[in-house]
Amino acid sequence: MSLLVVGSVAFDAVKTPFGEVDEALGGSATYFSTSASYFTDVAVVAVVGSDFPEKHLVSLKSRGIDIEGIERKEGKTFRWKGEYGYELNEAKTLDTQLNVFESFKPVLPDSYKSRKVVFLANIDPDLQRDVLNQVKEPALVACDTMNFWISGKRDSLVKTLKSVDMLLINDGEARQLANEPNLVKAASKIMSMGPKTLVIKRGEYGALMFTRKEIFAAPAYPLEAVFDPTGAGDSFAGGFMGYLANTMNFEPSNIRKAIIFGSVMASFNVESFSLDRLKSLDYKEIEARFREFKRLTHFEDLG
Amino acid sequence: MSLLVVGSVAFDAVKTPFGEVDEALGGSATYFSTSASYFTDVAVVAVVGSDFPEKHLVSLKSRGIDIEGIERKEGKTFRWKGEYGYELNEAKTLDTQLNVFESFKPVLPDSYKSRKVVFLANIDPDLQRDVLNQVKEPALVACDTMNFWISGKRDSLVKTLKSVDMLLINDGEARQLANEPNLVKAASKIMSMGPKTLVIKRGEYGALMFTRKEIFAAPAYPLEAVFDPTGAGDSFAGGFMGYLANTMNFEPSNIRKAIIFGSVMASFNVESFSLDRLKSLDYKEIEARFREFKRLTHFEDLG
Repeated sequence: MSLLVVGSVAFDAVKTPFGEVDEALGGSATYFSTSASYFTDVAVVAVVGSDFPEKHLVSLKSRGIDIEGIERKEGKTFRWKGEYGYELNEAKTLDTQLNVFESFKPVLPDSYKSRKVVFLANIDPDLQRDVLNQVKEPALVACDTMNFWISGKRDSLVKTLKSVDMLLINDGEARQLANEPNLVKAASKIMSMGPKTLVIKRGEYGALMFTRKEIFAAPAYPLEAVFDPTGAGDSFAGGFMGYLANTMNFEPSNIRKAIIFGSVMASFNVESFSLDRLKSLDYKEIEARFREFKRLTHFEDLG
Repeated sequence: MSLLVVGSVAFDAVKTPFGEVDEALGGSATYFSTSASYFTDVAVVAVVGSDFPEKHLVSLKSRGIDIEGIERKEGKTFRWKGEYGYELNEAKTLDTQLNVFESFKPVLPDSYKSRKVVFLANIDPDLQRDVLNQVKEPALVACDTMNFWISGKRDSLVKTLKSVDMLLINDGEARQLANEPNLVKAASKIMSMGPKTLVIKRGEYGALMFTRKEIFAAPAYPLEAVFDPTGAGDSFAGGFMGYLANTMNFEPSNIRKAIIFGSVMASFNVESFSLDRLKSLDYKEIEARFREFKRLTHFEDLG
């Protein structure tokens, strides 16, 4: 029923073959919370600079997102600049300015401390644990990470992994983290590091879920118009965790449904730049696309 | 009930991070017919050189494959040499020797001419039409092709595409053929060139089927031990076409099942070098893996 996310709120400059935006609202916590807001209450822990316009905070609040934990600090907001080629699969990062994120020490508002479902988006694994340690009795903890932390802060990341139930990363990161090219073996190694459930995001190829007992494969929704993949992974995580927080059912069969909801949200997100499509959905559209995923993947049993 | 394939019979030299083989039996028609033989009668049109050992023909025959259309010519058998890296996704071709294939003029034995289901494996599109023109009244024609023909013999390939019901290619080839990076748009362009059904093979990411009315997405089977991807696409095609020839039902719902059977056969094939695993399966193993695909992809409907 109550979801907490720590991550970035950022300004993105993004160029794709279909256009470009500058100073667009972005960041993992922004995409995550907007996506999750269709399913559950979500509270955000993040930091913005003195240059961050009030209208963006109002926009998040208008989706019912709790922004009490978004700290405003003297200085500039986190900025990311990236570019995508025609295949739209991987961003080339052109510039990253941590700015106010560099000295961020997250302090949770009291009302956040009893949240039951926690998502530690892709930030410094030290900060991920700082936040987690302030939550009283979480029922489900998941985290994301990236190559930068896997190579640069591996020991700290391994500590974080010991405390999480689920890890959501992409396939390249899974191979890097496990130091193993075969994805099935890599998954097994990663689960021995802590997370009982591993969700591997594969962009246009969908997602895989691994537990000790089963594997689930979900495709991505084939879209005729992909404009900007920025935030797809975080929108996926938002739909995934939002649905789990709403249902509070962490059985594998429900995690499978959550993966489809995550895939649905990611598919909407890439249809526009920034949060343009994601912030103005109708829940009926979400359900309709869930049904599309069923049609997309269904085949008859053996006769 | 009766399937015909034209393609290559070859000797492969393959190196993967897990071992290497030399002078191993390979070729598109070999993989295709071995895979299809679990589902239906299959007849092969191909050419081998005077160096081709009788034991390989005996081995194909022992699986019930009709080899009357495999011509033996003076000269050397077609040879391919390739290498795979750790990710095992794409072969680096080190050497191709067409040999007897260079002057191949396929002549169908009379008993082949009434075959109802035809697969034109990846060969010169001129030869594909030469074979097709000798078949009396095929009920279903499918073909494969590759970048080499898309760029080198585009006009001839376009002619072949006008005469086929289905095209099976990989995603890079689909993008190249349609000159369109978006796969959904590329599929639409390709279907306007002739094939009513397009199957896009994506290796470790599975397969997509496009018709004018629907899309189906199937994952690949996540394997802990992939030894050699050589022939995966042809094993897929063999299972796919074999099942369709066996059922003679070309409705989309049955094509979906055929794609799963194709995926099953490809998954067995990559578990060993050459045809080692593929040639000694039990049909019960095939059905068991089909059921595994159901478990792999199943999720509950909206409540």
